[in-house]
Amino acid sequence: MPEINVALLGYKFMGKAHSNAYRQVGRFFPGKYQFRMKVLCGRDRKAVEEAARLFGWEEVETDWRKVIEREDIDVVDISTPGNLHHPMAIAAAKAGKHIICEKPLGNTLAEAREMLKAVEKAGVKHMLMHNYRKIPAVAYAKKLIEDGRLGTPYHYHGAYLQDWIMDPNFPLVWRLEKKFAGSGALGDIGSHAADLAQYLNGDIESVTAQMTTFIKERPLPGTGAGSWGAKGSKGKGRVTVDDDANFLVRFKNGSVGVIESSRFCGGRRNYNTFQIYGSKGSIAFNLERMNELEFYDGTEAQADQGYKTILVTESVHPYVGAWWPPGHIIGYEHTFVHALHDFLVALEKNRLPEPNFYDGVKDQAVLEAIERSARSGKWEQVKK
Amino acid sequence: MPEINVALLGYKFMGKAHSNAYRQVGRFFPGKYQFRMKVLCGRDRKAVEEAARLFGWEEVETDWRKVIEREDIDVVDISTPGNLHHPMAIAAAKAGKHIICEKPLGNTLAEAREMLKAVEKAGVKHMLMHNYRKIPAVAYAKKLIEDGRLGTPYHYHGAYLQDWIMDPNFPLVWRLEKKFAGSGALGDIGSHAADLAQYLNGDIESVTAQMTTFIKERPLPGTGAGSWGAKGSKGKGRVTVDDDANFLVRFKNGSVGVIESSRFCGGRRNYNTFQIYGSKGSIAFNLERMNELEFYDGTEAQADQGYKTILVTESVHPYVGAWWPPGHIIGYEHTFVHALHDFLVALEKNRLPEPNFYDGVKDQAVLEAIERSARSGKWEQVKK
Amino acid sequence: MPEINVALLGYKFMGKAHSNAYRQVGRFFPGKYQFRMKVLCGRDRKAVEEAARLFGWEEVETDWRKVIEREDIDVVDISTPGNLHHPMAIAAAKAGKHIICEKPLGNTLAEAREMLKAVEKAGVKHMLMHNYRKIPAVAYAKKLIEDGRLGTPYHYHGAYLQDWIMDPNFPLVWRLEKKFAGSGALGDIGSHAADLAQYLNGDIESVTAQMTTFIKERPLPGTGAGSWGAKGSKGKGRVTVDDDANFLVRFKNGSVGVIESSRFCGGRRNYNTFQIYGSKGSIAFNLERMNELEFYDGTEAQADQGYKTILVTESVHPYVGAWWPPGHIIGYEHTFVHALHDFLVALEKNRLPEPNFYDGVKDQAVLEAIERSARSGKWEQVKK
Amino acid sequence: MPEINVALLGYKFMGKAHSNAYRQVGRFFPGKYQFRMKVLCGRDRKAVEEAARLFGWEEVETDWRKVIEREDIDVVDISTPGNLHHPMAIAAAKAGKHIICEKPLGNTLAEAREMLKAVEKAGVKHMLMHNYRKIPAVAYAKKLIEDGRLGTPYHYHGAYLQDWIMDPNFPLVWRLEKKFAGSGALGDIGSHAADLAQYLNGDIESVTAQMTTFIKERPLPGTGAGSWGAKGSKGKGRVTVDDDANFLVRFKNGSVGVIESSRFCGGRRNYNTFQIYGSKGSIAFNLERMNELEFYDGTEAQADQGYKTILVTESVHPYVGAWWPPGHIIGYEHTFVHALHDFLVALEKNRLPEPNFYDGVKDQAVLEAIERSARSGKWEQVKK
Repeated sequence: MPEINVALLGYKFMGKAHSNAYRQVGRFFPGKYQFRMKVLCGRDRKAVEEAARLFGWEEVETDWRKVIEREDIDVVDISTPGNLHHPMAIAAAKAGKHIICEKPLGNTLAEAREMLKAVEKAGVKHMLMHNYRKIPAVAYAKKLIEDGRLGTPYHYHGAYLQDWIMDPNFPLVWRLEKKFAGSGALGDIGSHAADLAQYLNGDIESVTAQMTTFIKERPLPGTGAGSWGAKGSKGKGRVTVDDDANFLVRFKNGSVGVIESSRFCGGRRNYNTFQIYGSKGSIAFNLERMNELEFYDGTEAQADQGYKTILVTESVHPYVGAWWPPGHIIGYEHTFVHALHDFLVALEKNRLPEPNFYDGVKDQAVLEAIERSARSGKWEQVKK
Repeated sequence: MPEINVALLGYKFMGKAHSNAYRQVGRFFPGKYQFRMKVLCGRDRKAVEEAARLFGWEEVETDWRKVIEREDIDVVDISTPGNLHHPMAIAAAKAGKHIICEKPLGNTLAEAREMLKAVEKAGVKHMLMHNYRKIPAVAYAKKLIEDGRLGTPYHYHGAYLQDWIMDPNFPLVWRLEKKFAGSGALGDIGSHAADLAQYLNGDIESVTAQMTTFIKERPLPGTGAGSWGAKGSKGKGRVTVDDDANFLVRFKNGSVGVIESSRFCGGRRNYNTFQIYGSKGSIAFNLERMNELEFYDGTEAQADQGYKTILVTESVHPYVGAWWPPGHIIGYEHTFVHALHDFLVALEKNRLPEPNFYDGVKDQAVLEAIERSARSGKWEQVKK
Repeated sequence: MPEINVALLGYKFMGKAHSNAYRQVGRFFPGKYQFRMKVLCGRDRKAVEEAARLFGWEEVETDWRKVIEREDIDVVDISTPGNLHHPMAIAAAKAGKHIICEKPLGNTLAEAREMLKAVEKAGVKHMLMHNYRKIPAVAYAKKLIEDGRLGTPYHYHGAYLQDWIMDPNFPLVWRLEKKFAGSGALGDIGSHAADLAQYLNGDIESVTAQMTTFIKERPLPGTGAGSWGAKGSKGKGRVTVDDDANFLVRFKNGSVGVIESSRFCGGRRNYNTFQIYGSKGSIAFNLERMNELEFYDGTEAQADQGYKTILVTESVHPYVGAWWPPGHIIGYEHTFVHALHDFLVALEKNRLPEPNFYDGVKDQAVLEAIERSARSGKWEQVKK
Repeated sequence: MPEINVALLGYKFMGKAHSNAYRQVGRFFPGKYQFRMKVLCGRDRKAVEEAARLFGWEEVETDWRKVIEREDIDVVDISTPGNLHHPMAIAAAKAGKHIICEKPLGNTLAEAREMLKAVEKAGVKHMLMHNYRKIPAVAYAKKLIEDGRLGTPYHYHGAYLQDWIMDPNFPLVWRLEKKFAGSGALGDIGSHAADLAQYLNGDIESVTAQMTTFIKERPLPGTGAGSWGAKGSKGKGRVTVDDDANFLVRFKNGSVGVIESSRFCGGRRNYNTFQIYGSKGSIAFNLERMNELEFYDGTEAQADQGYKTILVTESVHPYVGAWWPPGHIIGYEHTFVHALHDFLVALEKNRLPEPNFYDGVKDQAVLEAIERSARSGKWEQVKK
């Protein structure tokens, strides 16, 4: 059974989620290829060593460039803040490594395109970690659409809403600074919403958008915790990204879309939802109940029509057979396991995994058009 | 008990709903004033006579101008297609009648403004039948907002979705012709969504919009049913209104909004919904479950937070005390009864009912800005 | 159009609901026969006169025996406390009146049987007001069952839960005294649950039960309000009925059932629910969302199975065509209108309305077996 | 960090679930003690070797008695069919091993008591794998009860419903034979329902029950798959356990309960639910949405009351802090991880884990009383 040596760059939230997936994928999806958790990389040696022990990595590194140069690494997994995706991916591609990259691909469309060019040139495999495509209910939604169960698409609504920064005293973490995160709600969660929209309903051609920052200044991180940030007039910093980003879209297939993303929607902890309406049927999904898919079949007899809650936990549903019997639900972390399984299958069959950097560029192009529209106040075309 | 003589213009869907409300209001909301159902008016004498008998009207007329001239009429209720609102209201105001008018107020902003000017000049009472404001759950939502339970408003989402014209063979009824209806989904249901948004979250200042017609030609009414419309080359007609209208808005209070209206969302029979997110709390409503209001109180202890489904059927909730014990739900038609009750109370207290033509003009101004934006592709200011 | 003269005995909660239905039925279900609201009867002349004016009755009486003797009365509607059903129905039958009677039919099985014998002997029409059978969603559930959509029945669960007497200071109203009400939760709401079970799933053959009184003493009515009850040591009275009654049942068709009824279930305002499970499908209903029926079709493809929420507001659903367009919901009071419509149709077709006193005896026989079992601690047969 | 050497007996469904938990617990709940996955035991060497490789066990054995005798084993985990729990646990206790045992503890009350006696005598730690107690929402429900948020308990309803054997051609697997499983729906899922009832609402004192077998004969396993069972007249075997078991209960605390368990409820894949009603509040839970808890707070203002859906994914909720941010849900398998974490903490603090064999005996005593009542047709006391 060939072993695929992985190096993971980043060890915080995403590092934890990816590590778990590397450990679990072979347990539930045994296949020809198997991951070996070789190196975990982060700048703070002590912290990364502790993480490596906890997460199950063999070695640690503190310099990502060194990791990428290592001969024994087959796959580089980029799970760092967005500003590092571009240099890391370019370097990894040059070194001939396969790449798994967290979303959004880059912090700008230009970065994303360069990253794509680099992997194309290097001929390596590349995957973008849009893990929500790997939810059984979402994958089953995709299948219903491909099977024509929705008919001609008319109307799409997506909303990815959260509430974790509503407190004005929540500090100015990296996700709230443009130089690190590229954008705010838009890049963090709007990018998921846009990716799902394009995955399920095809290319977006044009957009009109609004982006809003409700809380314009926040305590610097460490404020109140006794760190340097607490001193003198340096107590507050400017929020340079959006708190809330909404956009109307026109799809290539003729349907229209309405998409919301916000971190200021109280009570919506991780409310990534969509509804798709076509001439024959409709579907609705909510990440907080990710084991369920609502399906309306407009071809049924009039008296029998209605939204049906399909518990997507049957062995015939995508990915589910590997886990537990019907009705025994899975959770957030499983989406990463599915993604890694798909990656391994792609390696085995020598094909490109999905989604990949092409999808990443497409997603980034939508985000770029949204930012352009938010500035111009007009409909903007998505660049090809 | 002073009797208020009413003449109702129109006897179809809205005529039936209004008639029921005139019959019922005094039974459940006994007050100083009481309606007398004097005249029902429609062009087809036989049909209107039958309707009058069924609905409980004393007399019929076929010429609305005559009705308005009658000395014994105190209130004229305009429940006709939109193109007739303007001449009827102007005439009724000139004749010194109080006016109850279906929404949208006129088919254009100019019409609506003239109608307002006419009632102002005449000094008569005027009410706009935005009946969904009168749902106990909606009225209670308003109260929660006024009591500060939501805090600073951030994000508003409204969606009024239906599916009754999805069949491409559904005929070209008056609601699908611009000359009668003014607009399509926008004026019919988007107007409700916009009214609720302004009622609950204050004035809308600017909008950007998209309006789409999915089915561009339809059978003329009567086609297939053997009527005159079925003859010769006249079998199909052009749909001159929108099937689907979506808009982003900016509210005067600094919050942002996303509003959808569509008649092409399968399985959404009468899905008039909104969610409002503020710094302290959130609410959500769905007309198909109109006796319920969801409320999230962000000031509760973290472990206890969540959306609560309030069954708005307690005697302490707006309007409810007049009906049945807790848990015994009411329906669509009750909203009209509440509106008429409010109208009578306004007469009794000699104040203007709510909503009224001022609200109608405000609603129309938003619709007008949406239509302008749909043409210009830009953000448009709502005219004052 | 022949007029059917009605006399209504009782003018409180049920009197209000029945009166509304008499006023409304002809407006929405025009037919050959029509009710005339002739006499309202109650002991307190002033109160009954006020009610008659409000509800729309032509005359009042204070002595029910006189009403029954009136030649001009065709139908006597008995909406009084349970202890009066028996003498009133017997007298009305003897006088040759058709009878509409609130449930439960009598306060004991013996009473119910005598009432049935009386109407049989008199040859009059009789209807029992088990209004929840007349909910469109319930009637549609019945149709699904009759069409074989559920297959062989296996398991039935019913629960009618309320919470209106949970406060220990809620007074000892007539519904809490055995001499007036016969029993407590059992007769008031358990009787509904048992009726729905037998209506939908056929005869119950045997039961085992528990009946419990949580609050054994309560303030006498009027206590605290300055009435005579407030005096001396007589401030409290003994609760002589059950607060909570649960039973296991065996149906004649081989399926099993579990039924709960309780007035001590906080947050359940009027939670009359059932789920029925058969070899081919399942259904679920909840009165608080009475316009919806959940249906699971076990014959669908495995990947597509799930509970579907049918909004029972289509013109093809029972009773619905008379009201409003799809998605415009109806409420509690409409169930009585439907019942009276069915009564008039039965008169017109000269057949027995449903449900009737036969159903009432069947329901009472189950209640009697439950009370027997609660005493004996054993399974008890339902008397034929 | 002391290592605890585990031997797991059984490698099918429960073996897979337990193995996953042994692998994961240290990754998310790092503590002083850590499991070492030493031996996996099963009768079929080839199959168990494959399972060991997949699940991550170091060694395999085919004779459970040998495993128990091994000096290097600290904990024996019994995840076999019910008829083996008793001999395995007795032997393991005699050998001085700590024991983790799947539920129900034994196949009879007598067995369970002997098992308890054995662990008491041996002085070893013992845990019963009632994993559903370890769901964050259930643990939080327990906390709400202990904090008095429900007040005096009145009414309890539990229902554990499944549908996996509804097809009459589903074969006669071990769970359908009394000699292996002890009972059917009762022991398999009713035991969960009874355990949750006693965990959350205290001791059950008496019961009355019905147990039913709908499909009395089934194909022998292997029938149709070409195995020996398909031959001759031996094609079918008798089902010797219940398909459906329901019971009314009386709790020691004065409240009443109604509990259903059935494997014949179509569309209920793994529908383990309960609702608990007290004088101050109510809670409701459903395993298919196991990250949610519904809570009704009857002490709130009347206009604000309602069932609240708490997404039990906050860091302040039990167990949750170890996993993901708010709104990122967990699944079925996590319950076993929590149980093993609790076990390790109990070892570390030298106290008895919960639930343990005392709880197992209590649960078994209820099951025994239910079986007695199903035979006697009377209320039966639960043996102390």
